[in-house]
Amino acid sequence: MRVEFGDLPEPVVHGARRALLNWLGCVLGAAHEDAVRIAADVMAESRPSAEAAVLGRGIDLDVGGAALVNALAAHLYDFDDTHARSILHPSAATAAVALSLCQRLDLTGADVIAAYVAGTEVACRVAAAVTPQHNDDGWHVTGTVGTFGAAAAASRLLGLEPRQATMALALAATQASGLRENFGTMAKPLHPGKAAWNGVLAARLARRGFTASEEGLAGRRGFLAVMAPDADRGALTAGLGRDYETVKNRFKPYACGVVTHAAIDAAVEARRSGVDAGHVTSVRAHVHPLVAELTAKTGLRKGLEGKFSVFHCIAVGLLDGRAGPREFTDERVVDPLVVALSKRIELVVDPAMGEESARLDIRTDDGRERSVAVEAATGSLERPMSDDALEEKFRMLVGEAAGVDDLVSAMWSLGPDTSVRELVRMMPGAARA
Amino acid sequence: MRVEFGDLPEPVVHGARRALLNWLGCVLGAAHEDAVRIAADVMAESRPSAEAAVLGRGIDLDVGGAALVNALAAHLYDFDDTHARSILHPSAATAAVALSLCQRLDLTGADVIAAYVAGTEVACRVAAAVTPQHNDDGWHVTGTVGTFGAAAAASRLLGLEPRQATMALALAATQASGLRENFGTMAKPLHPGKAAWNGVLAARLARRGFTASEEGLAGRRGFLAVMAPDADRGALTAGLGRDYETVKNRFKPYACGVVTHAAIDAAVEARRSGVDAGHVTSVRAHVHPLVAELTAKTGLRKGLEGKFSVFHCIAVGLLDGRAGPREFTDERVVDPLVVALSKRIELVVDPAMGEESARLDIRTDDGRERSVAVEAATGSLERPMSDDALEEKFRMLVGEAAGVDDLVSAMWSLGPDTSVRELVRMMPGAARA
Repeated sequence: MRVEFGDLPEPVVHGARRALLNWLGCVLGAAHEDAVRIAADVMAESRPSAEAAVLGRGIDLDVGGAALVNALAAHLYDFDDTHARSILHPSAATAAVALSLCQRLDLTGADVIAAYVAGTEVACRVAAAVTPQHNDDGWHVTGTVGTFGAAAAASRLLGLEPRQATMALALAATQASGLRENFGTMAKPLHPGKAAWNGVLAARLARRGFTASEEGLAGRRGFLAVMAPDADRGALTAGLGRDYETVKNRFKPYACGVVTHAAIDAAVEARRSGVDAGHVTSVRAHVHPLVAELTAKTGLRKGLEGKFSVFHCIAVGLLDGRAGPREFTDERVVDPLVVALSKRIELVVDPAMGEESARLDIRTDDGRERSVAVEAATGSLERPMSDDALEEKFRMLVGEAAGVDDLVSAMWSLGPDTSVRELVRMMPGAARA
Repeated sequence: MRVEFGDLPEPVVHGARRALLNWLGCVLGAAHEDAVRIAADVMAESRPSAEAAVLGRGIDLDVGGAALVNALAAHLYDFDDTHARSILHPSAATAAVALSLCQRLDLTGADVIAAYVAGTEVACRVAAAVTPQHNDDGWHVTGTVGTFGAAAAASRLLGLEPRQATMALALAATQASGLRENFGTMAKPLHPGKAAWNGVLAARLARRGFTASEEGLAGRRGFLAVMAPDADRGALTAGLGRDYETVKNRFKPYACGVVTHAAIDAAVEARRSGVDAGHVTSVRAHVHPLVAELTAKTGLRKGLEGKFSVFHCIAVGLLDGRAGPREFTDERVVDPLVVALSKRIELVVDPAMGEESARLDIRTDDGRERSVAVEAATGSLERPMSDDALEEKFRMLVGEAAGVDDLVSAMWSLGPDTSVRELVRMMPGAARA
């Protein structure tokens, strides 16, 4: 099955554009971070040809190097998309490979989308087959399974024959890696970075006739047998070409784990309806038990810890009306205003509450009490982020750079008329032509 | 613990030189093969700087690319060294990284040996800890654990501080991969190739401050927990810096699995003592049961199948007095003389026989019967290959190229006076300066 842009249903094309806009915002937003800088510096050590952009950093690298760094940046804030069924972050590696190779080969936005969909459909199916056991066993699915998505996207763009594509997927399987032990370190986003690099290598080797087992995925000692022995093998091909996983992505409005999102939604909604954080005297937050179990951290010192504190999350929702990367910096989590407000928040664990629900009972110093309830968090499959909300997130991440409006328009109309090289030149921090 | 050339006991230095000579022979001998050519072409696609040689192919690549291709070549014939306890092939990736980085950094043979020993001591210990379960579970230890050896060698040459080296090993752990499903395909030697590339990346990232878990190897979701849950953790550090694994390598005189080696030894010995293969009417080969179980293949069509046919192995031993790569080509396994002789060989399985033993009862058309018994195969730890035999193997692999005598001498005296860049220029097929 070869994915062609013209054959894709409109909702799938639109879903791909949403994912790519979200991916690009994450990449550009994180481009200045240390982990991205270090990875870019290391990949530049061999002074490769300038084939594809390290987005937002004003330098070009070879296809593999650029894809590695961009995929790393995409996942750095854990703000990228999530395949709801498997918790795979499907776009990080796949989109990075699609964009880098399309630059190298001077292709169009239609090719980006076709390659992105090919990679996403493959990776989400493998992820659905292997999770949750694969995750529970200690694997980081975004690294391991991301390799298949990257290889499939690269195979599509390099025009591999079916037998070669089988080899590419087997070469992906035998390179798949990434341990959950590294959560909380720079190695976590390196996993999709390496998935991207490895996927490009797999497709390039296969294109020139390199061999691997024909049973690399499902054979006796293949990926499933070794890394996910209880996999649901039927999920690998179920609905392929008909029922697109590309549209089953969820997007995060907030740069932290989804378990806190309903409570943040309620805080943002309270602020919008007139609650002034400076006058809040107490908040009783009614939440699902998981929220207390996973995110009840107090006494924060590091920005990263803020993501595991629903108190901090609600406080910034009330104060700032958002919870983006700037709300999870080392500075913000120790800001006296935020800390003082966090201390006025009390958790009420309610097992009857849905995982995607929350209710805040907010008391202010004028004696009023208001209640804000959220049934389904923004970004859940029940209540997906709107296109406008995705655009707003993009602007928050990218900032006020010149040309952002044009870039956003170009991303929404990504297709056969888009020159990928021109698109990349529109991006903030692009290398001068 | 930092490995310094001057601190190493003489037998360890000599053991490293033996391993490096053997490694180099394997690399140069396989340099013309398709898998090596394809990998070199792919790694050249990004036109990286010429930092290190793809040995025997007359081209230079960046450090990572050269290390990948050379490590692949080293393992292609399965003719490289074997850590007896774990069946890790310890040199493939580690020596490749040591040589490539020393070229890039313009270092000496003393640095090659120090880095090689550092990598080998680390990798052999991890391999000893995780095997045999890790192998039985479907992992190719030369790929997975090879990554640690490569990272340790690179860490030594890049001068990493202890904390950085810990990060480099964690970054190796989280990239470790390689599935046994690919045995018999080009992907098998790609595993140490990728181990080399990944090890260089790990050390370079760590040197610049990239982070990973401090418990990347032994933590709750680290390498051991996920990829070798029943590992013998004590083996990781046992004897470190005192009892060198570097000298526990075994070398193969024949380019096939060790299980056939005693029988080949006996055949070679029979030829040497005057048996003329053209006059042999029957051979009764008394062997350990494993020989019959693993290598009783008949009706050969492909060269690779010859490695799994003790009949073919004995036949070429009698005919050619050796069993190198040229005895396992597609042509040689269907040669009528070889096939006819193979059919006159009968296996006698003897459970009382040692695994490293064999006896051939050979009848010739003059009515004579001779018996040749081998107690311990050449290359076993009981009867290691001599330096002369290793040199002979090297010459067989490298052929009659000009300058081979000087190259062999240089390898035997590899040390502080050796410029690695000059050494590489002495090699057959080196790029012109």
